[in-house]
Amino acid sequence: MTDKIWFMSDYMEGACPEILEALAKTNLEKTPGYGTDAYCDAAREKIRAACGCPGAEVHFLVGGTQTNATVIDSLLKSYQGVIAAETGHISVHESGAIELGGHKVLTLPQKCGKLSAADIKARLKAYEDDENRDHTVMPGMVYISHPTEYGTLYTLKELEEIAEVCRIYGIYLYVDGARLAYALACPENDVTLADLARLTDAFYIGGTKCGALFGEAVVFPKAGLVPHFLSIIKQHGAMLAKGRLLGVQFGTLFADGLYEKLGENGIRNAARLRSALKEKHIPLLIDSPTNQIFPVLSDEAIKKLSQNVNFEFWEKVDAEHSVIRFVTSWATADAAVEALIALL
Amino acid sequence: MTDKIWFMSDYMEGACPEILEALAKTNLEKTPGYGTDAYCDAAREKIRAACGCPGAEVHFLVGGTQTNATVIDSLLKSYQGVIAAETGHISVHESGAIELGGHKVLTLPQKCGKLSAADIKARLKAYEDDENRDHTVMPGMVYISHPTEYGTLYTLKELEEIAEVCRIYGIYLYVDGARLAYALACPENDVTLADLARLTDAFYIGGTKCGALFGEAVVFPKAGLVPHFLSIIKQHGAMLAKGRLLGVQFGTLFADGLYEKLGENGIRNAARLRSALKEKHIPLLIDSPTNQIFPVLSDEAIKKLSQNVNFEFWEKVDAEHSVIRFVTSWATADAAVEALIALL
Amino acid sequence: MTDKIWFMSDYMEGACPEILEALAKTNLEKTPGYGTDAYCDAAREKIRAACGCPGAEVHFLVGGTQTNATVIDSLLKSYQGVIAAETGHISVHESGAIELGGHKVLTLPQKCGKLSAADIKARLKAYEDDENRDHTVMPGMVYISHPTEYGTLYTLKELEEIAEVCRIYGIYLYVDGARLAYALACPENDVTLADLARLTDAFYIGGTKCGALFGEAVVFPKAGLVPHFLSIIKQHGAMLAKGRLLGVQFGTLFADGLYEKLGENGIRNAARLRSALKEKHIPLLIDSPTNQIFPVLSDEAIKKLSQNVNFEFWEKVDAEHSVIRFVTSWATADAAVEALIALL
Amino acid sequence: MTDKIWFMSDYMEGACPEILEALAKTNLEKTPGYGTDAYCDAAREKIRAACGCPGAEVHFLVGGTQTNATVIDSLLKSYQGVIAAETGHISVHESGAIELGGHKVLTLPQKCGKLSAADIKARLKAYEDDENRDHTVMPGMVYISHPTEYGTLYTLKELEEIAEVCRIYGIYLYVDGARLAYALACPENDVTLADLARLTDAFYIGGTKCGALFGEAVVFPKAGLVPHFLSIIKQHGAMLAKGRLLGVQFGTLFADGLYEKLGENGIRNAARLRSALKEKHIPLLIDSPTNQIFPVLSDEAIKKLSQNVNFEFWEKVDAEHSVIRFVTSWATADAAVEALIALL
Repeated sequence: MTDKIWFMSDYMEGACPEILEALAKTNLEKTPGYGTDAYCDAAREKIRAACGCPGAEVHFLVGGTQTNATVIDSLLKSYQGVIAAETGHISVHESGAIELGGHKVLTLPQKCGKLSAADIKARLKAYEDDENRDHTVMPGMVYISHPTEYGTLYTLKELEEIAEVCRIYGIYLYVDGARLAYALACPENDVTLADLARLTDAFYIGGTKCGALFGEAVVFPKAGLVPHFLSIIKQHGAMLAKGRLLGVQFGTLFADGLYEKLGENGIRNAARLRSALKEKHIPLLIDSPTNQIFPVLSDEAIKKLSQNVNFEFWEKVDAEHSVIRFVTSWATADAAVEALIALL
Repeated sequence: MTDKIWFMSDYMEGACPEILEALAKTNLEKTPGYGTDAYCDAAREKIRAACGCPGAEVHFLVGGTQTNATVIDSLLKSYQGVIAAETGHISVHESGAIELGGHKVLTLPQKCGKLSAADIKARLKAYEDDENRDHTVMPGMVYISHPTEYGTLYTLKELEEIAEVCRIYGIYLYVDGARLAYALACPENDVTLADLARLTDAFYIGGTKCGALFGEAVVFPKAGLVPHFLSIIKQHGAMLAKGRLLGVQFGTLFADGLYEKLGENGIRNAARLRSALKEKHIPLLIDSPTNQIFPVLSDEAIKKLSQNVNFEFWEKVDAEHSVIRFVTSWATADAAVEALIALL
Repeated sequence: MTDKIWFMSDYMEGACPEILEALAKTNLEKTPGYGTDAYCDAAREKIRAACGCPGAEVHFLVGGTQTNATVIDSLLKSYQGVIAAETGHISVHESGAIELGGHKVLTLPQKCGKLSAADIKARLKAYEDDENRDHTVMPGMVYISHPTEYGTLYTLKELEEIAEVCRIYGIYLYVDGARLAYALACPENDVTLADLARLTDAFYIGGTKCGALFGEAVVFPKAGLVPHFLSIIKQHGAMLAKGRLLGVQFGTLFADGLYEKLGENGIRNAARLRSALKEKHIPLLIDSPTNQIFPVLSDEAIKKLSQNVNFEFWEKVDAEHSVIRFVTSWATADAAVEALIALL
Repeated sequence: MTDKIWFMSDYMEGACPEILEALAKTNLEKTPGYGTDAYCDAAREKIRAACGCPGAEVHFLVGGTQTNATVIDSLLKSYQGVIAAETGHISVHESGAIELGGHKVLTLPQKCGKLSAADIKARLKAYEDDENRDHTVMPGMVYISHPTEYGTLYTLKELEEIAEVCRIYGIYLYVDGARLAYALACPENDVTLADLARLTDAFYIGGTKCGALFGEAVVFPKAGLVPHFLSIIKQHGAMLAKGRLLGVQFGTLFADGLYEKLGENGIRNAARLRSALKEKHIPLLIDSPTNQIFPVLSDEAIKKLSQNVNFEFWEKVDAEHSVIRFVTSWATADAAVEALIALL
């Protein structure tokens, strides 16, 4: 497989060199466990600063599904469900982790992977108007991802509208930022970390897909929203014994603009690839501005391409065409993109 | 804190240098995710060899509580509980992770942290004899740890007796090996990896406390015992995206006898410390042969010691004495032990 | 409210007189609890006979949601979900009881409340074909209701096709028969109890909506399919202490053709009402042959009707029209139907 | 079995005649479902009056295990457990219903089936003092039963002390009153319904074992303590469609002092039996003043007695003696007690 060029996902390599170096440098230091060390504290402080939210509560977990299950379970009452797009990661690709915690995922139709404030509002109103609502699952949260599973972005206005609907109906807004670096680095994006801190009840800043070995940073803009969150993390098997590994990584990511730089590499390479696809008149399933690209190709072309390129099959379009997915990342070499373009 | 000497636990540092080197060396390679890569396969093969069990199924998870919750939930029926010592990790220190999966921990009294086959048998017989057993929780598994939470070891004979009781009553035996390296390196230990593979239905080989950055290797000696275990891992938020990080680590641990060597450092230093305590006539709560030592000291001595040493307070003994815990590890420097001895 | 005529649902009254009489007659007898009494045994025998399935295992529970949650949880593995129509009772009207047990409801589009074998097959095939299926919820069961939530009926052929798909893909088929009496009494129905016993892995015979005070009879055509089902019932809070109350009721329902007779009263009155609606050219949302009728009326007419009739509002059709629901039952008086017809 | 005399439990018969009559009288009335009817409202009002607590919120459920699981799950956070006696019903005889909801039962030693305020306080203090408490299950509630599973009673003083400890530590107090009628009718009892309403956060008034066909009345002295409790009831499969059956029953029990009268019959007969046992110098395991009596007899005597009497075997005492349990109830005939005494 090593001879192929890889566009399969953004978690194919280890970590960015800065992180590896920081881990090596601190390796034999002794620190207390479970995130109570000074590296974690320093990383939290940097994240608070980056979010312009000095009062935020920050926790470090290991992976995305784990983070979603833990945060969602921590915010919902036992009888509440979470509203998500039909294509949301929690709706389809977490093996029922949300349901394991006892919560229903209440799916809504999506457009390019995004929910609309209007649809959310209509769903919440329908619940309130339903005389038999005690017999249904009460929505307690809206889950969106930014970028979405289709690489698309919410505009600030859209996010504000969704936040406003949540506020009016008294439910939580939670943003899955597994690929947040690629949003923050994207010229089309107008949602900042400070906006997320201002508009959501919780969000997470993805490390795994954005240059860390692993790790996700959960931000509760209002500290204390979830009492005993450490017990909840532990109960969900999401507490890393050597918690400082996460502190060291996020401390590195949030120093010297590294997080943005890592995102930029993915975005720049995606833009180059997208532009080449357009030049070659290869249609895209969706107009996504971030690091996921969904070209529609003939099955024959896909077969041929797969001899030299690793990518993900997405879905059939018709008898002879399918969608595939290319993902660029912090680790994508410019040369690999040029090689792929040459092959297309 | 950096001026103190540390005997607080065995997860205070990063990883052994060999692992860090292996991670650095493979860092920018591209591999498929979720444990499907060649490094994981190679590590699985080494573990199978070390266990003398070519047919074993091996999975890599991130942490101990997560591993226990996932394996136990995977083996129990929804209405079954797991028998454990009152002092078992799952009984007291996992924040209810087993109950989150819907299972009761059925505690039995322990002796030096250990369960006896006789007590287990009596418990299982009591269930069978109970006319109202449908109204109680059915035991479906025995959980033991080796070494135990008190650093003690099951003898091979004791393990065989427990396994036999489990076999007779048709329930599973699962061994938590969070600190297994320290058992394997201990002269008093006569339980090998091959014995664990022969006698249990599942066990895990601890990485986090034994020299890895993180990670635990679950071994099902009979492959296929749990269909769809990958879905169960994912559902429990326990699947690492960059799964190869675990493969690289366990591949390193199980090459060139490294796992044993790491254990030996902990055991040798613990023996030195234990012997010094005996010379000083400091009593021990329990006669544990592995890397955890439980001296009984006056509260005054403890207070004084804590100015220079990090350790864990264990429990009060009487108005003026308490038990503390010293833990040595793969990373303990001989000089630190000598320094501690000098302070005592 | 007592002056109005009632077509709101089929659980508005107590029990049919035969059941009340049987409960009174046996009231002060002493029997063991939890369904181990002779009345339960006799009722089980009658149900086995009615199903032409001498080997069936029969259990009595109290209510429908409880029965669905208990049976579904008993048959699914922890990581499996249940396929159901978007309009299925478990999908929308059980407050997340299935999710409380950790299982996802995997919804499929419906036609007149029914699933098609083709859609189920496509869903199962898509799961099998999905390379990332370990990251999704595995379907472990198909749930259908007969009659459906829209009063429609599966034909025997449709049921056989669905059963065949389930057999091929190795998943369970479970039928919710909350209103089964109204199917069995319906001339359009060609699915017998024996067919259900032959084609499903589990089904329940509704008592609550079919003339009993309360109670549902779960039938596992193959005894022993779920070991320790009594523990599962108890764990779900679904075990009635005075279990014989259920035995007495189902023993009465399955003597002298009572269950069919009770269904016939609902069906005859529904037919009379349906025919009157057609004569009056009042359109129906759906052509349902059983005891639920969904007329489309102007909002003005609905408002007026509601002064004299209790019924359920179903949904808006357009700015000026809505669907309402009339339900007849074992308890519907002919005179009430004539009075309703006169009012329309 | 009908020739034997029965002292096996207090749920061997149907309902007291007054309840059966009330059910028959109202049988064909039409009312809305799910507890929204006028009978439920009237019964709630009577219970509020009996508790001297006009603001209380009252809900009707079907059975005891179901009620415990629903109430406990409604009051605890996902990461909290419930403190109970080792002999508590939820600890041993509910098949893991509490764990199904994700909560650990934190057992404490008992004395005659009772918890002490001192032990509870020590447990709560130990949690607060534990530096690693985030890794343990947080106690969120104390569960006691009155009478206890051994037929003993808390004194008002004991209950006040327990309530005070709960108040200080900010956790809930919940009382299982499955056999409450037998406490209220007992001369030794000094805990009134008003005391329960004043001192607890929730309790339930048992119907099933106290003269009803089935049913338990949950009282939340402070209305609104659990928002959306109806959804929680429904989610737990604990909502009776024909809810008015519960309203009719509890309305009857709480009219004309019936509930007390039913309890008195059990208590009077238990006192007569207890006094006869003392006269015959038959030792009792425990000095319980209510309707459960635990004589110690030789195994030979027990064997002989079992030919004519139905009772429950409790536990072995030594090689030749065992404890059995006699239970009297609202339905116990004086003649049966005299017959039993004659046989002893």
